Amino acid sequence: MPPLSELSPDALADLRAGLRKEYDALKGQGLKLDMTRGKPASAQLDLSAEMLALPGNRDTTAEDGTDARNYGNLQGLAETRALFSTLMGAPADQIVVANNSSLALMHDTIVYALLKGVPGGRGPWSKEEPITFLCPVPGYDRHFALCEGYGIRMIPVPMTGEGPDMDAVEKAVSDPSVKGIWCVPKYANPSGETYSAETVRRLASMKTGAPDFRIFWDNAYAVHHLTAERPELANILEACAAAGNPNRAFVFASTSKVTLAGAGLALWASSPENLRWYLAQAGRRSIGPDKLNQLRHVRFLRDDAGIAAHMEKHRELIAPKFAAVEEAFAARLAGQGVAQWSAPKGGYFITLDVQDGTASRVVALAKDAGLALTPAGATHPYGKDPNDRTLRIAPTFPSLAEVRKAAEAVALCTLLAAVEARLG
Amino acid sequence: MPPLSELSPDALADLRAGLRKEYDALKGQGLKLDMTRGKPASAQLDLSAEMLALPGNRDTTAEDGTDARNYGNLQGLAETRALFSTLMGAPADQIVVANNSSLALMHDTIVYALLKGVPGGRGPWSKEEPITFLCPVPGYDRHFALCEGYGIRMIPVPMTGEGPDMDAVEKAVSDPSVKGIWCVPKYANPSGETYSAETVRRLASMKTGAPDFRIFWDNAYAVHHLTAERPELANILEACAAAGNPNRAFVFASTSKVTLAGAGLALWASSPENLRWYLAQAGRRSIGPDKLNQLRHVRFLRDDAGIAAHMEKHRELIAPKFAAVEEAFAARLAGQGVAQWSAPKGGYFITLDVQDGTASRVVALAKDAGLALTPAGATHPYGKDPNDRTLRIAPTFPSLAEVRKAAEAVALCTLLAAVEARLG
Repeated sequence: MPPLSELSPDALADLRAGLRKEYDALKGQGLKLDMTRGKPASAQLDLSAEMLALPGNRDTTAEDGTDARNYGNLQGLAETRALFSTLMGAPADQIVVANNSSLALMHDTIVYALLKGVPGGRGPWSKEEPITFLCPVPGYDRHFALCEGYGIRMIPVPMTGEGPDMDAVEKAVSDPSVKGIWCVPKYANPSGETYSAETVRRLASMKTGAPDFRIFWDNAYAVHHLTAERPELANILEACAAAGNPNRAFVFASTSKVTLAGAGLALWASSPENLRWYLAQAGRRSIGPDKLNQLRHVRFLRDDAGIAAHMEKHRELIAPKFAAVEEAFAARLAGQGVAQWSAPKGGYFITLDVQDGTASRVVALAKDAGLALTPAGATHPYGKDPNDRTLRIAPTFPSLAEVRKAAEAVALCTLLAAVEARLG
Repeated sequence: MPPLSELSPDALADLRAGLRKEYDALKGQGLKLDMTRGKPASAQLDLSAEMLALPGNRDTTAEDGTDARNYGNLQGLAETRALFSTLMGAPADQIVVANNSSLALMHDTIVYALLKGVPGGRGPWSKEEPITFLCPVPGYDRHFALCEGYGIRMIPVPMTGEGPDMDAVEKAVSDPSVKGIWCVPKYANPSGETYSAETVRRLASMKTGAPDFRIFWDNAYAVHHLTAERPELANILEACAAAGNPNRAFVFASTSKVTLAGAGLALWASSPENLRWYLAQAGRRSIGPDKLNQLRHVRFLRDDAGIAAHMEKHRELIAPKFAAVEEAFAARLAGQGVAQWSAPKGGYFITLDVQDGTASRVVALAKDAGLALTPAGATHPYGKDPNDRTLRIAPTFPSLAEVRKAAEAVALCTLLAAVEARLG
């Protein structure tokens, strides 16, 4: 079929009639599918079944003699920090292993900055209002909600395929009110792209108006590959140190999509000075994390090879789901000039850019057909996508058959919305 | 022996010489004892050994069908909330079950109040600086550190044996800058006293200058009995509701000293309106708690009877330690007019009031003899006990033999410091 732009009004009207018929048939199927969130499927969680009986009755002593059952050890067990040293790109002594949510660590880091300030700053960020974060778009709605919740202004910056548009970033950070930037540097949520070495270098070395500017480096998908290709991500902590900005980056990750989504470990890493600062703040909040869950992870994952082997099993389960989406989109949307979509090499999402001005309509059509999609705009600050264009597709949680069905439905809704828009 | 006050200077000097000899002998023993923190002993943690292999490989589905391994359920599993309903004095739907630290819940509740404000208030508390909390003394150093860390002024209020001096509290809260009060209402840390029904009624019904005044009700020792007596604590949430102040109290507790100190569950309860507020804030911070640990607790503790039976086992282990301290103090200090100490019916601490002006000296003497005590002043805001009088003794962690030895050492140091002070 030719691109929609080459169709006559009559041909478009005929196409719309045909698509509506298809759509009505879709509605008649009474689907109940959810493609909203990047949740592991039950089969993925089964990969960690062994953990559910760990550490076992007699295994509660850490390498340094710590009784993992009792209070204490705010930074986390040494062997757990060592286990995640490669993944975090930091020495074990610059890592904090906490409870089950890296979002919580990002939240707390922001709260401590707001109420106490960070090293190199002039005091609490909350006294310098308004402050601003740069938000590469499309991005992660929970990052944006944190900023919005605490009155931190957000400036969107476009992603380029190798990370944020660094010319725009470098220009924006000259403003001293700009205190931070959100980055998902590998297999980005939702575009799937990995920041280039040059992007990392420029982020680490750029001149900032704020002396206490911080990069929130949410490396959520560090080991979450979908193909045999393994794009290299430059080490942000090393790049910052080399550029003379050792305290610039806070690194976050978690095992939520490695072991158990609700019962993983959250990870934090930064410079020695930032670490001391963080622990001083976190020490008022808690006496220490759940160290039994840390032992569980050490016993189960063991080392880098153990993590890699485990992630291969995830890949076997979810790569076919991504392929099914790709197939459905290609079959229906290729060459139509109404949509573009990403082919991620890792991570949890596919970005679908539909015809400008139709993303909300696609979501509404899908909803009426029993398919929940992330709201249009969720990939942008304040939930506002100025082009009403970008949708985030999360194919991991439903079964492969459901994913295929859902992707076909999304493609149909995308096409129908585009035709409707052209006909006015 | 007669009270010190009846001894002649010569008799005092003789006494000092004898005590110093004893003290030098004590130092010669090379003790290494720690009575600083209310930590369960290893034998207490062994009581929950069964939990270490729970929930087991096939037991991950909650009563409502939730997969406890996956993301979600910010408020906690319904069956876990039900399990702690009696302990919290709140219906399950007004309870939040979180991760392993109730201190973290107190911290977060304060942070949300500072940055967002609470229901009934005029906005973020941080915009109304300075704000003030009332701090019944002696009290818990980590409560005070939270206030100090975030610049919240603290006003000490004396404890009376049935809770804080309510005349002083009622007078102080007329000041609209007073936003909160810290309460450990049962087996208080460290005095051991339980608030009377009248104290609870007055706290719930008193007129406050601030429309958004809050009681931080840290019911840390709700089921932690040391005797067969079970002093009744009135229900603060019901008292506040009855008095027309339904949103006044935030209730906190944990299972840190029920199951596993580092891997327990933290509990939060309040009015429906406060609950909605709390979840709205906490929902930006995290997608949900570790629900597998919640299942572990439900499987292990089962119900109120299960909790009570389990706490009896703790009592059997720790009551003898409290008795050993009592015996050692009585043997050495009774009738000397140099010290008073509490005889708690529950909780984790004994308060030892030494001769005014000598608490720091007692701690220093103990330290030189190899016995770590909580710093003098720790029971007061800013670490300052104006009378240099109150010491907190934590007898649970060391072995019974060590506790006896440590209590004898404390008694000796207390007596020696008192004699020294009298001789100038």
